[in-house]
Formats: sequence, C-alpha cells, structure tokens
Amino acid sequence: MRLHYAPNTCSLATMIALEEAGLPYEPVLVDLAGAQHSAAYPAINPRGRLPALVTSQGVLTETPALLGYVAQCRPEARLLPFDDPFRLARAQEFNSFLCSTVHVAHAHRMRGHRWADDPDAIAAMQRKVPDAMTAHARMIEEHMLEGPWVLGEEYSACDGYLFTLVRFMPADGVDLRAFPRLTGHADRVAQRPAVRRALGTEAAALPGPLA
Amino acid sequence: MRLHYAPNTCSLATMIALEEAGLPYEPVLVDLAGAQHSAAYPAINPRGRLPALVTSQGVLTETPALLGYVAQCRPEARLLPFDDPFRLARAQEFNSFLCSTVHVAHAHRMRGHRWADDPDAIAAMQRKVPDAMTAHARMIEEHMLEGPWVLGEEYSACDGYLFTLVRFMPADGVDLRAFPRLTGHADRVAQRPAVRRALGTEAAALPGPLA
Repeated sequence: MRLHYAPNTCSLATMIALEEAGLPYEPVLVDLAGAQHSAAYPAINPRGRLPALVTSQGVLTETPALLGYVAQCRPEARLLPFDDPFRLARAQEFNSFLCSTVHVAHAHRMRGHRWADDPDAIAAMQRKVPDAMTAHARMIEEHMLEGPWVLGEEYSACDGYLFTLVRFMPADGVDLRAFPRLTGHADRVAQRPAVRRALGTEAAALPGPLA
Repeated sequence: MRLHYAPNTCSLATMIALEEAGLPYEPVLVDLAGAQHSAAYPAINPRGRLPALVTSQGVLTETPALLGYVAQCRPEARLLPFDDPFRLARAQEFNSFLCSTVHVAHAHRMRGHRWADDPDAIAAMQRKVPDAMTAHARMIEEHMLEGPWVLGEEYSACDGYLFTLVRFMPADGVDLRAFPRLTGHADRVAQRPAVRRALGTEAAALPGPLA
C-alpha cells in the first residue's frame, strides 16, 4: 500500500494506525504547496485532499474510513472494536466528531476560502478559530476521553487521531495547559514506538537545519 | 431505542436506516428552535446536535456512527458491507465525505455563527453556499455514485444518507437539473417503503395546513 501524506496534516492519524498494525506501506510525500493541486494528485484523489491510501483494490480517502480499513486488515492489532457494535459506534462517533467538527474548525484558520470569497470574511473566520477550537478541546476533555485512552483501557485508532488533532491546537490558539487530560493523553501516545516511527517519517520529510 | 430527530435535518438518514433494518424505535421530536439548547437536550447529547440514538447501553451520536450501529445490529438487512474491508471503507469514505464536507458546506447557510461572529462574514459565507454545494453535488455525480446505488448493485445505508443531503440542495441554491444521476438516485430512494415510512413520520411532525 502507498500512503499519500504530508507532515503536520491529519494523514499522521492513518500513518500511526498503519505503524500500530504493522502493515507494510510506502509513504509518499505530497507537496501541499503545489503537487496536491497539480495534474498528478487529483488522479489519486479527485477531492484533492490528504490522506489517500492506494491499495490493491483501489484508492481510499477520509481518515475515519482509513482507520477502519487498517483496523479490519489487521484484526489482531485490535485498533477498533469491530466485534462490539456499541463500542465500535462509540469509536466512530469520536472519529466523526474529530473529522466533521474539530478538523473543520481548525481548517477555518488556513482554508477559509472553502467557505467564503471575501478576504474580510476569511479574516473573521480566522479570529474565531481559538474560541471554537478551545470549546472543542473542552468537550473532549470533559466528555469524550474515558482515560487512559479514548475508549478506556484499550488503545485504539481513535487515540492516534486525537493525538494528531491536539498537535494542531497550539497554533490554533488553544492554551493546552487548561486541558490536563488531553495533554496527558498526548504524552502517553507520543511514547508509543509506532507513533515515534510515524513522527520520524514526518520529521525526515521536513526541511532540516541544513536544508 | 429512541431516536431524537427533527424534520429536514440529517436525522432522516438514521431514521431511514432504522426503518430499513426493521428495528423498533421511538422517534422523539426535538424542537430545533428551542429545546435542543434547553436544559433537557444537552443531557442527551452534550454537543447539542441531532440526531441522538438512546440505546440500552448509552447514547450515540454522529450519523456515520449511527448508520454503522444500525447496520451491525441487524446484519441480515445488509445495510453496510461489514464482511468486506475494502467495500466497508468505500462506504465509510462516502459517509465521511457527506458529514465532513457536504453537510459542513450546507451548514454555512444557516449556522455560520459557528465559524465567525461578524454578521458581514456570516453573510459572505451564505453567498458561497450555492457554489460550494454545487461543486460537491458534481463531485458525487461524477465520481462517487456507482449506480444504481451509491455502492453499486446493492442498496446501503449510504443511499439514505445521500438522499437526505440531496434534499437540502435546492434550498442551498443547487440546480439539481444539472445532476441527472443524483436526481435519479433520489427518485429510486424515495420509492422504498422504509423511506416512505420515515418521510411520513417527519411529515406528521411538521405543522400542517390546519395547524
């Protein structure tokens, strides 16, 4: 499989899941400044977004779908509770909230042009990002993180996804010191070997001090 | 189970799935003008959104999660291909695109206050809704609807969800005459007995000509 990714985007969640599952994959760096919208990338994903996972059966996109796919491809890694409809729904509820509410609020900082053309309106959206993201952080802190992991005692693909979006939050204007459960969770996730491998892949793709 | 719903919202997708599955449920009408944000509803869903499904194990929210839950609770209805990881991921990709992109674009018409405080910015968002929703309709028309159903030969929970959002489109400024595959699909979905029952429940909750 090939994972089309870019550092500091939500593709990290799927890369972490692939690493946790121990599935072989080739990371393919996409230049968000250019190639994503060049002639090549739309052939991979006509919606022009990351991540995209190229499989032997076709290309898959959308983080919640990719997390489910990785989990089903390697059931022994127990990344999602497919054998328990209620627990699986709880996991999917969490992932859906992240993609449709949290990530969307974040996107209003850098991608406001999706929802308005007027530069003043785009600036107004940017000004609201800190409050919106702080409210979402509080919702997760108070209602959606069972602890120590998102679903309770067992690590799941939800944890790598939450970790990915919490990493967006400081730049979005969220003061994470107000959210000790979120930061404690992020610390636990960051210590996992699979997560360190994924972060290493991202770091190697970023321009270094000698670049 | 109890489904907290409101007419002309995305709760229709879950109601259709419950009807298709033949699962018994009680529809509970939520007054979007008031009760959703009153003292009572946040105890059901702290995020204040519809739909919410009250089960014997707890409350579930987020349409993609609810569709998966209903499908797993009644596997013989074959509402999602849980036995085929790639096909399931394709279905989840579709549902995720609807909730995180299509529904979000739609929400900028009525709920712009989520993403900006300035009234001029909210008006600017509203002006872009027709173009954004038309682009999403075209994406589905050209790339995401295998036909006759979303996933091909078999009806799935994705079909009731697409039907639900296509019903938003005329008010969002989309000229559906440009999208014959979408309108043909909506016609096929509307003829299903389960869908007619769900639409009947919604219609009975709306103020009639004698109200």
